[in-house]
Amino acid sequence: MASGPHNEHDERREHLSLSRRSALGVAVGLTAMGAQAAAARTTNVVDVVVVGAGFAGLTTARRLRASGHSVVVLEADERVGGRTKPGRIAGEVVDLGGQWVGPTQTRLLALAKELGVSTYPQFDAGKNIIDIGGHRVAYEGETPRLVPEAMPEFIEVIGKIEAMAAKVPAAQPWQAADAEQLDAQTVESWLVLNAKHPAVRTMIRLMTRAVFSAETGQISLLYFLAYAAAAGDFNALISTRGGAQDSLFEGGVWQLAQKMAAELGAAVVLEAPVQSISQNNDGVTVATPKGDWRARQVVVTAPPAIASRIEYAPPLPAQRDGLTQRMPLGCVIKVHVSYSRPFWREEGLTGLVLSDRTEFGPWFDHSPTVGSTGSLVGFFDGAPAQRWADRPVEARRGQVLKDLALYLGDAALSPVEYLEEVWTRAPLNRGGYVSVPGPGVLTAFGPALREPFGRIHWAGTETADAWVGYIDGAIRSGERVAQEVAAKL
Amino acid sequence: MASGPHNEHDERREHLSLSRRSALGVAVGLTAMGAQAAAARTTNVVDVVVVGAGFAGLTTARRLRASGHSVVVLEADERVGGRTKPGRIAGEVVDLGGQWVGPTQTRLLALAKELGVSTYPQFDAGKNIIDIGGHRVAYEGETPRLVPEAMPEFIEVIGKIEAMAAKVPAAQPWQAADAEQLDAQTVESWLVLNAKHPAVRTMIRLMTRAVFSAETGQISLLYFLAYAAAAGDFNALISTRGGAQDSLFEGGVWQLAQKMAAELGAAVVLEAPVQSISQNNDGVTVATPKGDWRARQVVVTAPPAIASRIEYAPPLPAQRDGLTQRMPLGCVIKVHVSYSRPFWREEGLTGLVLSDRTEFGPWFDHSPTVGSTGSLVGFFDGAPAQRWADRPVEARRGQVLKDLALYLGDAALSPVEYLEEVWTRAPLNRGGYVSVPGPGVLTAFGPALREPFGRIHWAGTETADAWVGYIDGAIRSGERVAQEVAAKL
Repeated sequence: MASGPHNEHDERREHLSLSRRSALGVAVGLTAMGAQAAAARTTNVVDVVVVGAGFAGLTTARRLRASGHSVVVLEADERVGGRTKPGRIAGEVVDLGGQWVGPTQTRLLALAKELGVSTYPQFDAGKNIIDIGGHRVAYEGETPRLVPEAMPEFIEVIGKIEAMAAKVPAAQPWQAADAEQLDAQTVESWLVLNAKHPAVRTMIRLMTRAVFSAETGQISLLYFLAYAAAAGDFNALISTRGGAQDSLFEGGVWQLAQKMAAELGAAVVLEAPVQSISQNNDGVTVATPKGDWRARQVVVTAPPAIASRIEYAPPLPAQRDGLTQRMPLGCVIKVHVSYSRPFWREEGLTGLVLSDRTEFGPWFDHSPTVGSTGSLVGFFDGAPAQRWADRPVEARRGQVLKDLALYLGDAALSPVEYLEEVWTRAPLNRGGYVSVPGPGVLTAFGPALREPFGRIHWAGTETADAWVGYIDGAIRSGERVAQEVAAKL
Repeated sequence: MASGPHNEHDERREHLSLSRRSALGVAVGLTAMGAQAAAARTTNVVDVVVVGAGFAGLTTARRLRASGHSVVVLEADERVGGRTKPGRIAGEVVDLGGQWVGPTQTRLLALAKELGVSTYPQFDAGKNIIDIGGHRVAYEGETPRLVPEAMPEFIEVIGKIEAMAAKVPAAQPWQAADAEQLDAQTVESWLVLNAKHPAVRTMIRLMTRAVFSAETGQISLLYFLAYAAAAGDFNALISTRGGAQDSLFEGGVWQLAQKMAAELGAAVVLEAPVQSISQNNDGVTVATPKGDWRARQVVVTAPPAIASRIEYAPPLPAQRDGLTQRMPLGCVIKVHVSYSRPFWREEGLTGLVLSDRTEFGPWFDHSPTVGSTGSLVGFFDGAPAQRWADRPVEARRGQVLKDLALYLGDAALSPVEYLEEVWTRAPLNRGGYVSVPGPGVLTAFGPALREPFGRIHWAGTETADAWVGYIDGAIRSGERVAQEVAAKL
């Protein structure tokens, strides 16, 4: 009944505790195990097992190793990088997942500097297009433009959001003064009470969808505000220059994960999905089809909805299990389209388009910094991602080109190549960019996000105290958990 | 990319398709399998595998067998019954899970009649107590009583709920005329706009918590209304006489599951948690630690949050996987307290108490129909269940007795025995009574509730077209899916 770990029921763990601890990192046979199981399994011993080789897990492992601890990173997938991933289009390597960096994402910038990967600014010379409610505006600069009569209310609504977000503690949103009330409603409920002009409502809905890969009617207002607070403010989430879409990495951000993994070498084990985590007073055993790892502590970096598929012995506290049932991943499909040249630039356009007439979008200019080719990158997010995820790639390609042509002309219909990643249909990811809780989750279950359970610690961008949902947040969570674990070794 | 099943990646399935189909129900060795795996596994062949031995699964299996098909029911737990379960307190066998039946739950009543288990009315002679906002009312009859000045608004609010529910199609709530709008808000958001008197708000919150094991701030308004529609109306959910709490089963409703399982005999396999479901053009393979089952069709009756832990090959469509991430189980702890006599009856009380001053509650008289002992049954639901689930049993017992004594006097402090089931901490259940989606789930993902994926069909009370969340709904879902599957055999 107590929430601490105990171990009446796990026979394998019993056996394991009989085996001698080997030198760190060296595989040992398990003479005490049943003959059949022993034939198929080996047990490796380390100080810390890290589950997941995304930015959170790789950062954790590097930090712990730098402090002299032995680690292993167990990754279910056949690659590292988590929600970042390389892809190749028209001879260029691009990011199929996370890609941008902003000036206050200092941990990601520091990592890039350390590993020798440089950044360049998101192209923004020219006019952006916003097309909402049948009113199309082409404008320069950072402030989104709507039909003129909607602008005062739009600015007022953004101001209200910023004022509310400023009062929410990013790392503990459940401690906000009016947390219960903010968490008992959706962003949509707040929006319809606080914005009258249809263009303002639509604009907030589109921006929310683009930031969260989810709909205003699905997201807790408290989470929405906490997410903005974790980025500094809402403006930072939606902005290019100075915001979350400020710059890109030469060659792609995925390289940073690969460089970290290369440094960790054999300590990163791929295609090793964790089946169970069993702990007792002596340590913790992490089981995979590639064998068992015995450790003193374990760090789980997978998002809650993925971590919920691991079997825990003893079982997770109700608080933590309840959280894992209530943190769905957003829905997203990321698309790259390559052209022989960036023809939109010739018409004075940045390539950035946000529209309520298209399924695809927003999209951005993503042209290579060398050569003369052009490319666009964009998203099916939220409801459109969900509507399109189970359809064939040809259907999505057709829709994307049609949507692009609406604003960029018929030249958009003749790409050199089309490339996509259907994150929301990938069984090891189940969506992206990040977990998006509905109402009533953070206030009731939020503290379980970071609360260790015995020898199990939690990381991942969902647990960050700044830039939740971003690569920077993942790194921060890894740094935090490495400290937390090191204090117990 | 297509949503239909295909089979590039599952090697075991490849091997299986090489083996000959045996006579139905007869285990066959798998000569084509790799030597090591074959040594440990056997494959059994049936027409249909049913996952889960609750009322939905057992009903499905009985129906299919009655139509001449061979079946197996694979159950992860060491017992049948799903969200019903027997317990023993003071020499009496009681229901630790679902227990009541109402007059319109015709499928459950028919099953009880067929299997020879009789019902008796919930005790309701005397006064119920409602204590809200510091105003305590003892009243007779079905209509809840609040402080007099709140009653007109309370009746008006219930009337509004009934009017809205009447317009929601229970089986396809996403097809309601204003489905998007209803689904974009929580019950709480609607409540604060439609009820001003604090006692009315509190009463709706307490009733919602008691019906859904969740909070008004967590539940989609559309789901709330659809749930009422599936019960006939909201009144049916909250009523004793004529409603969902009308009658009890002599000896407990769990017996019905046990009797169905006894009839199915060896076709029910306990402690066989399903690890994976792999399908191709030739059939479907269901893997458990007790061996594999090969079948033509499979029926999964586990709630979506539990079914999400199975590995599917090919992977689930995004629509279905997305649903499983967004259907958390409510939080509930069910408690029985036994006394030497039903002392509250002596004071003219029914034993039914609903209060905003207690953590525990509502509770009901649950005294045995024979003998002179008395007992109460009640709940920690929603937020209180969640707050108390990870604490020790002694703490809960203390709180329960304290809460009971507040209304029934000090005699409540001296029970003969205390018995509880912490559903929300049970790893194979993860909560109860039922899955409770937040806003934006039904309209976006709802159709995946019943939509088959190739050879995989879905049942369970969550998929019912009437009495969703109740045993009656589970039976109905089993009847529906048995027809659906039989049509494909």
